[in-house]
Amino acid sequence: MNIAFNPIGIINSPFVNSCRSPRQAQIEGKKGSIILNEEYCGGLVGLQDFSHIIVIYYFHRQAEIKLEVKPCFDPHQEHGIFATRFPARPNHIGISVLSLTSIKSNILYCADVDVLDGTPLLDIKPYVKYFDQIDNPKCGWYDNIDWATITRRAS
Amino acid sequence: MNIAFNPIGIINSPFVNSCRSPRQAQIEGKKGSIILNEEYCGGLVGLQDFSHIIVIYYFHRQAEIKLEVKPCFDPHQEHGIFATRFPARPNHIGISVLSLTSIKSNILYCADVDVLDGTPLLDIKPYVKYFDQIDNPKCGWYDNIDWATITRRAS
Repeated sequence: MNIAFNPIGIINSPFVNSCRSPRQAQIEGKKGSIILNEEYCGGLVGLQDFSHIIVIYYFHRQAEIKLEVKPCFDPHQEHGIFATRFPARPNHIGISVLSLTSIKSNILYCADVDVLDGTPLLDIKPYVKYFDQIDNPKCGWYDNIDWATITRRAS
Repeated sequence: MNIAFNPIGIINSPFVNSCRSPRQAQIEGKKGSIILNEEYCGGLVGLQDFSHIIVIYYFHRQAEIKLEVKPCFDPHQEHGIFATRFPARPNHIGISVLSLTSIKSNILYCADVDVLDGTPLLDIKPYVKYFDQIDNPKCGWYDNIDWATITRRAS
């Protein structure tokens, strides 16, 4: 079974190479924009009332598939690809939660953008706390990361 | 640009028709399982240490694309498709946060499953509070829903 999708737009960001971009969104607060194909503008009605969106996109610069990887946040230890957000997954699909700043026609201005410039956009969903907010989740190896140090290093 | 993916497994759930399933995960707590294709088992290393996963899947029973829809939680009002989680999106991609109960070989036992039985799985990502948890998000029209009533009706 082969499932085919077409990009519905493009995500623009300050990141031009993948070594800089894999730190996830909220850590850096970088600004970017989504250029939605104009034919889909009708689908944006009401989205301006949300503070955050989930973007689903294609890791277009990723060729490899690996089942175990050493992710950026823990480069000395291998983890199963499904226990990471690393791009080298069987299907090269990425998701990120972005802050939605404003919408002007077919352009969505965002902050906390962590994707590569020119990333093909597959979908936009509203961030809905009633579905996406989990109380006290256990987050595996990410719970052992020293986030304060990473944030300092990135800023 | 046409982007092709292949399912990496199947999600099993108690839901056989889409009228019952669109209530999102945590509301019903239903149990289900993910049967991952065996070739990808190596990618699960470390995932057992997470309490929640994000599954990305294909809305395989969805034929239509609509830019404005009347979603299940607000059936009398039209909303732009990107301001909803409704399946009739330009690309029929769904995401859900599921509770991960246990993993046995290539089978992931889950709770809070809200997808249709037999749904093709595209990706599994760990739920990472450092990326996926947003403090006090504004959730547009979802903030006006009477969730207590919906939960009572569903149970």
